[in-house]
Amino acid sequence: MSDVTLGGPEASVTLMREELVSLCHRVLKRYGFSEPHVEAVSDALVAAEMDGSRSHGLYRLLGFVDTLNNGGVVPDAEPAVEDTAASVVKVDAKGGFSPYAFRQGVPGLVSKAKASGVAILAINHCVHGTALWVEIERLTREGLVAIACNPTQSYMAPHGGREPLLGTNPIAFGWPRLNEDPYVFDFATSAIARGDIELYRRQGKDIPLGWGVDRDGVPTQDPGEVLDHGAMLPFGEHKGSALAIMIELIAGPLIGDMLSVESSEHDQGRGSLPYHGELIIAMDPARIAGGDAPGHMLRSERLFELVQQQGARLSSQRRYKARRRHLEQGVTLSRSLYDDILNLAS
Amino acid sequence: MSDVTLGGPEASVTLMREELVSLCHRVLKRYGFSEPHVEAVSDALVAAEMDGSRSHGLYRLLGFVDTLNNGGVVPDAEPAVEDTAASVVKVDAKGGFSPYAFRQGVPGLVSKAKASGVAILAINHCVHGTALWVEIERLTREGLVAIACNPTQSYMAPHGGREPLLGTNPIAFGWPRLNEDPYVFDFATSAIARGDIELYRRQGKDIPLGWGVDRDGVPTQDPGEVLDHGAMLPFGEHKGSALAIMIELIAGPLIGDMLSVESSEHDQGRGSLPYHGELIIAMDPARIAGGDAPGHMLRSERLFELVQQQGARLSSQRRYKARRRHLEQGVTLSRSLYDDILNLAS
Repeated sequence: MSDVTLGGPEASVTLMREELVSLCHRVLKRYGFSEPHVEAVSDALVAAEMDGSRSHGLYRLLGFVDTLNNGGVVPDAEPAVEDTAASVVKVDAKGGFSPYAFRQGVPGLVSKAKASGVAILAINHCVHGTALWVEIERLTREGLVAIACNPTQSYMAPHGGREPLLGTNPIAFGWPRLNEDPYVFDFATSAIARGDIELYRRQGKDIPLGWGVDRDGVPTQDPGEVLDHGAMLPFGEHKGSALAIMIELIAGPLIGDMLSVESSEHDQGRGSLPYHGELIIAMDPARIAGGDAPGHMLRSERLFELVQQQGARLSSQRRYKARRRHLEQGVTLSRSLYDDILNLAS
Repeated sequence: MSDVTLGGPEASVTLMREELVSLCHRVLKRYGFSEPHVEAVSDALVAAEMDGSRSHGLYRLLGFVDTLNNGGVVPDAEPAVEDTAASVVKVDAKGGFSPYAFRQGVPGLVSKAKASGVAILAINHCVHGTALWVEIERLTREGLVAIACNPTQSYMAPHGGREPLLGTNPIAFGWPRLNEDPYVFDFATSAIARGDIELYRRQGKDIPLGWGVDRDGVPTQDPGEVLDHGAMLPFGEHKGSALAIMIELIAGPLIGDMLSVESSEHDQGRGSLPYHGELIIAMDPARIAGGDAPGHMLRSERLFELVQQQGARLSSQRRYKARRRHLEQGVTLSRSLYDDILNLAS
């Protein structure tokens, strides 16, 4: 490792990118994940860690191993790619983690989107625990515009309701830019990520009103009540709620896979990572814009400039800054997380 | 007309569906719209009026005629359908209203979605003033799942910004149901529709905080300040803002058409209805769900039941109720609106 700081609760470890990758590899190999899963999962976790997302970074290894120990994931699943229509690629992940299934689906998705103008990748029967934006960037590198979404488990009440039913259902979007990092966003349709509420609980802090309700459906600031007995709430009231329902449908029954409520039932209280499907839509500007497609795409630069000129933040810019800084200086993990991961690896 | 109530400001007129249609026809014919535009626009306006949406109903005729008088729409434009890829239909509306262009694009969109699994309809160079959900329902009647969106004009600041840049950019979604009206939503990505802020101004009332900012970017409750000097705000803070930007991009440059800021510049302050593009994505469950597609679609009924069981409202149910009531009893228009429309017709 590059650097270790000892002494007290602030003790930390700084690791360069290659060290993060090899740490992930060691853990995942030790638990019997097949080579392509080891590589695909490690790349996804390290990408998130490099982008400054602790919640989707190496910390997830702990949950991945728990899920394996619970029988919640198949460590050597070999995804089956199926060609069901001119603009559809289906990948049956066969109970494995999603990143390898995504990789197997990408070549077909890219070639179909470029041939037809738009194509869908439906990943079925996968266990999900990695960030969507990493997949989105894989597609923007091909010059494609992409949207990805998935259900999770029943954590959230619909707007106006009080019981957990919907998932926190993230949606991500990517737009390729010339000589610039792509415009990418990736957010949960809940008011806040579940992990953030967990963090408030661990710190014994009240959550703001609007994030969740208690067992009686009454707004509460008690994080434990929301997580264990009540329900999370959607962002943006009825609009965010409608989007979460859309995601349940198009990344659930539309692709022949589970709703969040079905995924929760499948879990049977084991607390595994959610098992369900994922939908990715990829669109090729060269086939859709018509005429001077690069010129049309370039007009979007004006929008990005005008957003930033008035002091508003452009989604994903903070991630790109973190990525560049971490590539040079390495990522700092807390000593306790590093030790927990090392324990898994040995 | 079916019924007229006279006397004072509450005077009203009740018209049956056929009477609304013939009133629209009279107005649009009188102003030189070609037969297919007369029919397509009338159907869209009457559908909205029947669904209880005053803002997208016959009231719009006044703005349509204004836009024509400003030279902002071509009354006899003949849309050109272009086949650019296996899953893409492009329709050049040639400066006409969008409903006729949409009609011309539907057969290709439906057949391509059913052949390829997913297809896109891109409408270019259209003038927009009708509700997206009417188009969405046309596609759910074919058994397709559909998403539609469009930019508008620069009315809204991005989250964290203060100047009008983004449109109110509506997004609509539809999901076909067996023996039930489809699940449909259709909402602006602004905190509230522009028309609602207009209504507050006309009534001399303060708007709630969160809808807009004044010329200095400070939150204000003055509707006129928001509309004339400041900016509207997105729903759901940075998430709604990101969705509005996505819509600018995928229903703008991706399809070779204008951003909201470009549409505003094109308008040159005439106050015409916005001129821009529209994107519709249609997906065929039969090609995507795999195996027992109808069985998968039927699982969505459980979600709808569980939403309603906990007292939450399912999008579009209020519209369907209004539609059934108005089909039986007719729609009541204010006498002043009715007179304004009659004046246009004669």
